[in-house]
Amino acid sequence: MTRYIFDPFGKLYAERTGSMVSSEIRDLLSITARPDVISLAGGLPETGALSPEVMAEIAREVFLEDGPGSLQYGPTDGYAPLKRILCEIMALEKIHAHPEEIVITSGAQQALEILAKIFINPGDWVVVEAPSYVGALNSFMSYQPRFITVGMDEEGLKTELLSESLTALRKRGERAKFIYTVPNFQNPAGITMSARRRARLLEIAREFELLIIEDNAYGLLRFEGQPLEPLKAQDPENVVYLGTLSKILSAGLRIGWVYAPAPVTERVLLAKQSADLCTSSLTQRIAFRYFTTQNWRGVIEKLVETYRERKETMLEALEEFFPEEATWTKPQGGFFVWASLPPFINTSDMLANAVENKVAYVPGTGFYPDEQGTNEMRLAFCHPPPEKIWEGVERLSKVVNRELSIARSLGLDIKNKNNKRLEEP
Amino acid sequence: MTRYIFDPFGKLYAERTGSMVSSEIRDLLSITARPDVISLAGGLPETGALSPEVMAEIAREVFLEDGPGSLQYGPTDGYAPLKRILCEIMALEKIHAHPEEIVITSGAQQALEILAKIFINPGDWVVVEAPSYVGALNSFMSYQPRFITVGMDEEGLKTELLSESLTALRKRGERAKFIYTVPNFQNPAGITMSARRRARLLEIAREFELLIIEDNAYGLLRFEGQPLEPLKAQDPENVVYLGTLSKILSAGLRIGWVYAPAPVTERVLLAKQSADLCTSSLTQRIAFRYFTTQNWRGVIEKLVETYRERKETMLEALEEFFPEEATWTKPQGGFFVWASLPPFINTSDMLANAVENKVAYVPGTGFYPDEQGTNEMRLAFCHPPPEKIWEGVERLSKVVNRELSIARSLGLDIKNKNNKRLEEP
Repeated sequence: MTRYIFDPFGKLYAERTGSMVSSEIRDLLSITARPDVISLAGGLPETGALSPEVMAEIAREVFLEDGPGSLQYGPTDGYAPLKRILCEIMALEKIHAHPEEIVITSGAQQALEILAKIFINPGDWVVVEAPSYVGALNSFMSYQPRFITVGMDEEGLKTELLSESLTALRKRGERAKFIYTVPNFQNPAGITMSARRRARLLEIAREFELLIIEDNAYGLLRFEGQPLEPLKAQDPENVVYLGTLSKILSAGLRIGWVYAPAPVTERVLLAKQSADLCTSSLTQRIAFRYFTTQNWRGVIEKLVETYRERKETMLEALEEFFPEEATWTKPQGGFFVWASLPPFINTSDMLANAVENKVAYVPGTGFYPDEQGTNEMRLAFCHPPPEKIWEGVERLSKVVNRELSIARSLGLDIKNKNNKRLEEP
Repeated sequence: MTRYIFDPFGKLYAERTGSMVSSEIRDLLSITARPDVISLAGGLPETGALSPEVMAEIAREVFLEDGPGSLQYGPTDGYAPLKRILCEIMALEKIHAHPEEIVITSGAQQALEILAKIFINPGDWVVVEAPSYVGALNSFMSYQPRFITVGMDEEGLKTELLSESLTALRKRGERAKFIYTVPNFQNPAGITMSARRRARLLEIAREFELLIIEDNAYGLLRFEGQPLEPLKAQDPENVVYLGTLSKILSAGLRIGWVYAPAPVTERVLLAKQSADLCTSSLTQRIAFRYFTTQNWRGVIEKLVETYRERKETMLEALEEFFPEEATWTKPQGGFFVWASLPPFINTSDMLANAVENKVAYVPGTGFYPDEQGTNEMRLAFCHPPPEKIWEGVERLSKVVNRELSIARSLGLDIKNKNNKRLEEP
């Protein structure tokens, strides 16, 4: 953010603006929009699985069938026919909702902002995975909570650490408001929470009266292994579930949804009304028509194939080019690989060199509310075609190797100690 | 809002949720959606000035020309080509902005929510016109300010009352953060702020270091008289200006914008990012294509004609049917007439009778943050065709006259004392 030497409104801002930070990803996207830079940074979904001609025809028909409705304000809770479709989508993952139980939001990001607004008093404790989705962290931070971060291993959230943290809080007479989790192919770490950890998390949440916010943006994009039941399917009463069409249809339509226990839904609805009155009547109708006229399950299969190939390319390239001192996660779905380098490498500092070498990634620190992540990075395989991923990882490895050889010449201990956090079961 | 006898999450909500209220308008819209009820309630724009065939063709071409861009995330500040168009629209009212100075929001409602978030600490003073736009009040209230309400007469905001209030505050060592005003054809009162009051407001704002939030949703919809310069055109440094496409193109696209002083814009952008990442890439492209291929000034002229006719019908019907004890405003533009009844009539209580008589309006109380407005009502002439407006006012007058004759038979003083607030210069 530009800092103004003299800001005439300096005295007017709310205290919470002090906690508002810009996503490094956003700042990066403007740099990495340069066509010669291969971006492994932004989590931009693939748009090529949808035919522009088909979408053009859908949009045309929506206007011809219901022009006035498409142009008008709509209900705050969303376009009812689309809500029925969203219930069908959730049913694919064994979540059984009624349309009147869900609220459509302008992307899942709006749902996160609304939940932050209705749950967080300044100073409240909230629990997040470490690392966690930067958009969620930014929304939460702007309402000034204190964070408890709980690390992950290959089975996801370390539930016993969570239990210990909550017990310590309880001893001090305090409690946490909610835990935010992305159990499937987590953004940014690419890790999936195991079935036993899910069961344990639900137990702990019940024990400590901790609400669970489950963000399932990537759930239908599984490359391998058996689908695991969402938390919401197992304990509908204690989970606020967030869904989105951004990854299975289009991010440009800005459609997400919340499926929460009824009293929470009432408050979500009030906050949604203040937030933007309603989500676009037009994009909701286009989404509805898409799901009712197209082979959308086929499109998801196509997307899964596309992302699987890119993931495999990225893992092979990492194997091929990255130094042995680096480690990385092996996602079963989604968009992201999380890489850890030796602790003396600062990925924020290294970024300038990477961009000079025409490759970009997101440094790790933005994904933690505290000082962690300095030697970590998120590598997105969702958007570039395989050959670009291969080349991008190769370019990046040169930058990493240069850091390592400087360290070696200085006699530093280059062993990657920190990556254990993500590897130990 | 449904009140739950037992809400397991009762202990978890943020304090601000206690200040979140449902718009009576929203609750009403569901009742008045019954086709036999003539609704003078919701401020729904006319959609008939746009041809569905033309919009269908525009949407089709947008997908064919830039399918991937339409389906993808976009920049947080908005689609640059559309920002250039929005500057052209503002230039019609003598506001000269550069595209990089504005931020596109998901309707002007989102801009209000964002401004509330970045300016209001709990307990802060904010100034609003009395009555004021309910959507703004709801966003503000959810951040727990204290309100100073300043009445209006036929010249708009009573600036000397404002000056007195701010002086009183200053004596107590306090200050107000901002004033929110709708200078043109105000929602709900239909009043336009005179040129001399605008000048005086700008003076007062400078004197008391009070930021002005100017909401100009209806500025281009003037039926008669000369356009008045927006506050922003006169004092760009101290005014945050809000625009919207909802009234000149479509509310269903959800496109508004903020043109603020640069340091404020930086914070708006951070909050926008948390709020929903970006406004729909698709609807922004459709709007851009509409403005670059269609005779949009002609459409605005057509809308002005439509609304003028409806306004005239409403005023004639009020003259014809409403009792002499009622008074109402005579808008020079926009969507709304504000009517005042004798003080013993409670328009909230009367609404059930009105709906039974198959007509709806919005009771006055929702437009004040305090206890005012019990005998007032907003009558929207924007949506129903003239013959429905005529019939609606006739139906409503029967309900009002029934209240009056009950009062007369009880020997109550039925003189309308309260309307002076809106009538005296």
